[in-house]
Amino acid sequence: MYFHVQEFINEIAADEPDPAAANALQEGLGGQFGEMRTMMQYLFQSINFRGPDGKPYKDLIQGIGTEEISHVELIGTTISRLLDGSPKYQGKPTDPVDQPGAGGATPLSIAVDTSNIHHYLVGAQGALPVDAVGNPWSGSYVYNSGNLVLDLLYNLMLESTGRLQKCRLYEMTDNKTARTTISYLIVRDQAHENAYAKALETLGVNWRTSLPIPKTNAEQFPEVKKLLDLGLQSKNYSFDLTAQSEAGKIFQGASPSNDGTELDASEQAPEGFPMTISPERPEEFSPGADDELRKLIEATAAMEMADIDATFGRMT
Amino acid sequence: MYFHVQEFINEIAADEPDPAAANALQEGLGGQFGEMRTMMQYLFQSINFRGPDGKPYKDLIQGIGTEEISHVELIGTTISRLLDGSPKYQGKPTDPVDQPGAGGATPLSIAVDTSNIHHYLVGAQGALPVDAVGNPWSGSYVYNSGNLVLDLLYNLMLESTGRLQKCRLYEMTDNKTARTTISYLIVRDQAHENAYAKALETLGVNWRTSLPIPKTNAEQFPEVKKLLDLGLQSKNYSFDLTAQSEAGKIFQGASPSNDGTELDASEQAPEGFPMTISPERPEEFSPGADDELRKLIEATAAMEMADIDATFGRMT
Amino acid sequence: MYFHVQEFINEIAADEPDPAAANALQEGLGGQFGEMRTMMQYLFQSINFRGPDGKPYKDLIQGIGTEEISHVELIGTTISRLLDGSPKYQGKPTDPVDQPGAGGATPLSIAVDTSNIHHYLVGAQGALPVDAVGNPWSGSYVYNSGNLVLDLLYNLMLESTGRLQKCRLYEMTDNKTARTTISYLIVRDQAHENAYAKALETLGVNWRTSLPIPKTNAEQFPEVKKLLDLGLQSKNYSFDLTAQSEAGKIFQGASPSNDGTELDASEQAPEGFPMTISPERPEEFSPGADDELRKLIEATAAMEMADIDATFGRMT
Amino acid sequence: MYFHVQEFINEIAADEPDPAAANALQEGLGGQFGEMRTMMQYLFQSINFRGPDGKPYKDLIQGIGTEEISHVELIGTTISRLLDGSPKYQGKPTDPVDQPGAGGATPLSIAVDTSNIHHYLVGAQGALPVDAVGNPWSGSYVYNSGNLVLDLLYNLMLESTGRLQKCRLYEMTDNKTARTTISYLIVRDQAHENAYAKALETLGVNWRTSLPIPKTNAEQFPEVKKLLDLGLQSKNYSFDLTAQSEAGKIFQGASPSNDGTELDASEQAPEGFPMTISPERPEEFSPGADDELRKLIEATAAMEMADIDATFGRMT
Amino acid sequence: MYFHVQEFINEIAADEPDPAAANALQEGLGGQFGEMRTMMQYLFQSINFRGPDGKPYKDLIQGIGTEEISHVELIGTTISRLLDGSPKYQGKPTDPVDQPGAGGATPLSIAVDTSNIHHYLVGAQGALPVDAVGNPWSGSYVYNSGNLVLDLLYNLMLESTGRLQKCRLYEMTDNKTARTTISYLIVRDQAHENAYAKALETLGVNWRTSLPIPKTNAEQFPEVKKLLDLGLQSKNYSFDLTAQSEAGKIFQGASPSNDGTELDASEQAPEGFPMTISPERPEEFSPGADDELRKLIEATAAMEMADIDATFGRMT
Amino acid sequence: MYFHVQEFINEIAADEPDPAAANALQEGLGGQFGEMRTMMQYLFQSINFRGPDGKPYKDLIQGIGTEEISHVELIGTTISRLLDGSPKYQGKPTDPVDQPGAGGATPLSIAVDTSNIHHYLVGAQGALPVDAVGNPWSGSYVYNSGNLVLDLLYNLMLESTGRLQKCRLYEMTDNKTARTTISYLIVRDQAHENAYAKALETLGVNWRTSLPIPKTNAEQFPEVKKLLDLGLQSKNYSFDLTAQSEAGKIFQGASPSNDGTELDASEQAPEGFPMTISPERPEEFSPGADDELRKLIEATAAMEMADIDATFGRMT
Repeated sequence: MYFHVQEFINEIAADEPDPAAANALQEGLGGQFGEMRTMMQYLFQSINFRGPDGKPYKDLIQGIGTEEISHVELIGTTISRLLDGSPKYQGKPTDPVDQPGAGGATPLSIAVDTSNIHHYLVGAQGALPVDAVGNPWSGSYVYNSGNLVLDLLYNLMLESTGRLQKCRLYEMTDNKTARTTISYLIVRDQAHENAYAKALETLGVNWRTSLPIPKTNAEQFPEVKKLLDLGLQSKNYSFDLTAQSEAGKIFQGASPSNDGTELDASEQAPEGFPMTISPERPEEFSPGADDELRKLIEATAAMEMADIDATFGRMT
Repeated sequence: MYFHVQEFINEIAADEPDPAAANALQEGLGGQFGEMRTMMQYLFQSINFRGPDGKPYKDLIQGIGTEEISHVELIGTTISRLLDGSPKYQGKPTDPVDQPGAGGATPLSIAVDTSNIHHYLVGAQGALPVDAVGNPWSGSYVYNSGNLVLDLLYNLMLESTGRLQKCRLYEMTDNKTARTTISYLIVRDQAHENAYAKALETLGVNWRTSLPIPKTNAEQFPEVKKLLDLGLQSKNYSFDLTAQSEAGKIFQGASPSNDGTELDASEQAPEGFPMTISPERPEEFSPGADDELRKLIEATAAMEMADIDATFGRMT
Repeated sequence: MYFHVQEFINEIAADEPDPAAANALQEGLGGQFGEMRTMMQYLFQSINFRGPDGKPYKDLIQGIGTEEISHVELIGTTISRLLDGSPKYQGKPTDPVDQPGAGGATPLSIAVDTSNIHHYLVGAQGALPVDAVGNPWSGSYVYNSGNLVLDLLYNLMLESTGRLQKCRLYEMTDNKTARTTISYLIVRDQAHENAYAKALETLGVNWRTSLPIPKTNAEQFPEVKKLLDLGLQSKNYSFDLTAQSEAGKIFQGASPSNDGTELDASEQAPEGFPMTISPERPEEFSPGADDELRKLIEATAAMEMADIDATFGRMT
Repeated sequence: MYFHVQEFINEIAADEPDPAAANALQEGLGGQFGEMRTMMQYLFQSINFRGPDGKPYKDLIQGIGTEEISHVELIGTTISRLLDGSPKYQGKPTDPVDQPGAGGATPLSIAVDTSNIHHYLVGAQGALPVDAVGNPWSGSYVYNSGNLVLDLLYNLMLESTGRLQKCRLYEMTDNKTARTTISYLIVRDQAHENAYAKALETLGVNWRTSLPIPKTNAEQFPEVKKLLDLGLQSKNYSFDLTAQSEAGKIFQGASPSNDGTELDASEQAPEGFPMTISPERPEEFSPGADDELRKLIEATAAMEMADIDATFGRMT
Repeated sequence: MYFHVQEFINEIAADEPDPAAANALQEGLGGQFGEMRTMMQYLFQSINFRGPDGKPYKDLIQGIGTEEISHVELIGTTISRLLDGSPKYQGKPTDPVDQPGAGGATPLSIAVDTSNIHHYLVGAQGALPVDAVGNPWSGSYVYNSGNLVLDLLYNLMLESTGRLQKCRLYEMTDNKTARTTISYLIVRDQAHENAYAKALETLGVNWRTSLPIPKTNAEQFPEVKKLLDLGLQSKNYSFDLTAQSEAGKIFQGASPSNDGTELDASEQAPEGFPMTISPERPEEFSPGADDELRKLIEATAAMEMADIDATFGRMT
Repeated sequence: MYFHVQEFINEIAADEPDPAAANALQEGLGGQFGEMRTMMQYLFQSINFRGPDGKPYKDLIQGIGTEEISHVELIGTTISRLLDGSPKYQGKPTDPVDQPGAGGATPLSIAVDTSNIHHYLVGAQGALPVDAVGNPWSGSYVYNSGNLVLDLLYNLMLESTGRLQKCRLYEMTDNKTARTTISYLIVRDQAHENAYAKALETLGVNWRTSLPIPKTNAEQFPEVKKLLDLGLQSKNYSFDLTAQSEAGKIFQGASPSNDGTELDASEQAPEGFPMTISPERPEEFSPGADDELRKLIEATAAMEMADIDATFGRMT
């Protein structure tokens, strides 16, 4: 069973809108090696896990899978913020609803030249469950062979590929909104690499000098360096409300990345960051409440919805 | 940010394996109107939500979305249990790993005649992210127009269709493992129907006698009746750890289903049910640990992993 | 612009339900070489047609494309009839709605063993836009190169492949409902083969002895022979309401199939056959109208809907 | 059975070619909420319709489905016109066939920078059965649950979403060719919204102030306003050749959109607009007839094809 | 550049037709971890290989990729043989072409109950480029990150998963035709595991006791044991015609599988096995040559095609 | 069984990088009518071929299929070269690995504006198995009806369409790297057109003046003219190592293209062109070997890998 808090797992820095960067980040959300994939793969591996002796392995996978849901939330919101307001629409604050396209204007003309026109045409300047070339996410991405060693090996490769792609993403844009999230995910992907590599060590592999894969030297990326200095690449959170996780039996000792750190599974979760709600976008008809409906909502909110049936003359 | 507890959201009754029922239930997991879809649709609608005035609507969607993750966990596990052991493999308990196919035996011969051979060939008698005819789940299913009324209308239709399909599933099998989950989801789908219908009432619609859709008369299904008598169709859980959800401003008053109940959003979450880990399946090579690896795991567990590096002669 | 008459293009014989035959026929509806594909391919070729000199070619393609819409209607209805009632559900005529699954019965148990469970679970014993293994129809099937010779060559190959598959379908089932439609489409596919072959003759090809492709000797199929004797393989209908089609400039002279017949484009359309509406299926909750709604519909029909607003207390 | 007239359902205004607008309009043709989808969904719902009492509902759906075929024709042609000539190719009128790429020229260089290179590479400056990001249309879009209320609710949501997207399209381009079709479809989508909303009113829903969805205030779009003033949003055509449609039993009374109009189902079809055939495009090798073939076609046309076999020395 | 010899890479044993086994083997041909995938993945990795220093790695991948083309040929033919004649059609040898379905017979009735009806309806009792549940092979399967360590790690996982699935296939059927190919591929997959594992050893990993993955104990499968005794799991062929491959610089020394063998890259290719051509299948209209065409072919063959133009009265 | 030589089937001219041209060429590699499709279609037709009398037809298809593998290699490499270095990254030659993104630089910023961002984000400036709009190659493209005449007719249409698209590609770019490959494939596609057209002539068709399709007048493209003058459009290679191919029984006599040439099947294969390996791309982390790994590789190469196990302290 899952629970939610109204906080982000990391802060999203403010910057100008940037639809091209937003589209690039879609790969990290809905791509074959993005966060929706890690999330789903680990949830299925947890559900189908076999072997009562292997509880620490299951708990490790379950915990990382839970973290990935928060990553979906984080990168999805980042994309949404990069898109929000990108057509630079100037609505009159007093009457925004009547504004869109009035008199034949074209406030969404940016859409026909942008990376993914669906960001404006199908969604309302928000994230989509697709990759950076518009392919919808597919269940065929999920790997769950049922053989523990193979599943762990795949997971290691998956996290390494996700990190490789995010390092490439870092090199594609210097938008701060994009980079705070990219950098955070680079470091957390490395933590997950370490987790799966360590699990494979307990099953017989000696990685020696081969990790992390890729050798990104990502500490040369300033935003990444800051997070590495905090040791985030060597922490594992359980996200387990009742402290039953045994993942710490695996995630301990020297890091397989050979960076001199010790693995640490002592924290339940990181500190969260406050959530806010995006503004309406009248040119998207989002939410498209007209004045009458707006008044209705406001009236309803005011009376705490207590007598809604009476208001609407509900038939009983 | 999301958290997990090692409990199921509902109990899964024990019964014989039944791969045909397992395959039918895949529609409820990975189908176009299944739990993966509701989960993803509501998470995206929460991420992209617009309109600070509309926080109660966002909280309603977010809370139901969180519940759907637990539904994925529930129905996935149900499928896994229906498949587990279905080839009736009889391994020797003392030496199960050496058993599979020894001497040319065909312990998986059931697979070639079964509904979805992938349950045995790609997975290891576990759930897959596909529907009941084997189509992988697709991101193109997710609907998020950004227009609040449309999104709510779609959600109402989605829950109603999910409930319609689950009522049909109920009529396809009387396996108890399958039916406990099907019945629970029928009732919870109705709760979500009520939630979205109520939200649309606050925005102007009067449903009069049209709900629930479909008129399933599901109270004639004995397992469903039991849950209706408990009032589960009229409860909304927040799954919100810090009690910030305002969904109760909407989910209150008389049920739009006109069943005489009052909507109740006072509970954070239902009681959970214990989780167990499935047995190994040597004929699937799952986990496929041979004796040597098994000893390694046991040894590692015994010493609490403390000196793993020493054991492996780790190079530093 | 398109119009409709409430008649089928051919008669559909009555026989027992047969879900396996229904599923096989899906290939002829939603398969890569089925009627949805020919319909869409010819509509796109008509829309995008280039070359004012080539009006007879455009009219030929447009006319066949219009016929294919009626073929979609014909084969779709045939599938629906083969499925309808296949679970042999015996509802009480006085109270059908309360019947489905009452007391825990499983009136849809046939679904888990049938060719495509979606026929019962997603649809309500009706046709689906998929092929015989469940793949949804795809726009990627449509071929429209814009080069006239290539488009005609493809169309000839397409009709020949459709006919090949329908000859194979004929050999798979002797259900009369299935066979009337299969046989009719075999003969009409040959007519369309003749049309495209003749068009290519006007552009330079001499088919000599190579047509029809395949040499099916389909006159050995009794139901097909009857239609061949009527000459249906050598007729082209315009389906053009204002008699502007110039297709007859091409579709004339000796048949390229070398069967001794003359091509005839003198008829606008064949005689139609009466349409009926299928019964309700309470076990599918289709339409799922409960007694109250049924009364509402009946009342509404009785008063010719004249005062509906008054009845519902419409707010104005 | 279906028929065709060689007329468009609305006029398509002339303007400059605009491949970006053409690509945007692909969403309205082959997108998840475009005209191919409405057309196919309503045809399948008609084919599979259950309940002899419900003939007015079936007729309503069948009639709108027939109209959608003409909408496919309309928007497909609009896209084709927006693309036609967009590379600004200047062929010599006397010898266009020898022109393309002669001497190494690059008359199609526009293609590599345009929204969908397939418009030039796969098609010949014509419409494709894909959406605005290039995804082929899929049969998985079609919704046909078999439950009348659900199907109508889905159809209402579908038309509303189609209208939402077309309002966004309006805001993306002011090309007149694009806008005449966009504006016409906005208004006809609203007519279909009204149709399904009215049908749901007869089954128990009171929409009160919630329609139209979205509140687009589209009357502020000048081209749309003109059509609204003609009342096109409140008319339903039967497209039924033999006047058997009972859709008017539903489509009557005050409009559910609360715009003060009365619904009117008295017309069979609107006036049509003349069709023309697009010019050849030698740089696309479309049709690519060389001089010899052209002479052949001309010769054939001249003699009305009467003696084609003699000409070709046909073997008999 | 590639060449072909008309020999199979391994012998295919004769046995009865078995369409269920044929369908299961489709996973090994067109599945996500089947031979089409390994073939394509390695060809792309060879084409895009970076790093002149890494020629031995490229040669290793290129050589295995070339072998996989022969595996596609082998398993495709195996499937074809398992299907061929499975409907047990009894044609008259003197007149097989006129036989199919004559008098209304149903020689293909097996198709409606079989695993993949396309084997009879779309193909003519032959292999298809799909997996065991009918999903077409997809280019999205190919992994080629461009990072050498990641690509090798993926390849190791890919071969291991392929081997895992083939071990499961072995347990599903004891048909000899199926098993000779399954067993051969199990052993060759292990050879490729060894190849990629060894390559990773040269880049820093020490596999210790973790290979082969999975620990299948496949030597307990009698057909596999025979091939292991021949040492096929420790051989690498170059398939390189001009002996430029440097793969042997990597594929040497002790096997990473720790089975006591030494890796051996000294052979160019194994001995081949003779190819035969399958019989015609008149009930599939394959090839569907009627008597006239057959005589034409025979005549042509007789005169070695020398004067074909004269025969056909070719216009010059 | 297949073999390889380390040579290209044609020379690839040097020119500047051009990612837009690279993307356009993807259609020729992974598009519905590209080289992956011809390759796979002919391999499947060879595997499933029926009719021992038809060996010359099988050999013809098999030989062309083998050539297509080399075409995949050729066009894949061409795309790779067009992409390679396109971001104009300026790494220090002495320390390229530490360079990427150092200090927050954006060496891959080109990616967000380019035709297919996956060329930089998923691949490492290399070819992908997708078409020019990013759709992955699909097994559903493969046509293999089992009816010889139909298969040959499809193949003729397929080669003609491939040639049509390549003629359009020629008109899109004058990059020399792109054009050498495009021009070569135009001419070889015509050779394959001739092959299938000739095969159909032996089965009864007289093409008269209709070939080649399309009438491209491609001899007006200077690079194509050069190859036509060499007669490459009238040659067929067997690529058969043991000279068992009987394709020459078909591929002989006057060309069906009526260009005055005689068909010639006397050569086994063309002369090959030397292969080189692309440079590393540190900004793609390809291969991403850091200094330590590089030293390891170099050391290993130096000692010819002889004592690798000793080096790594392998446990035995």
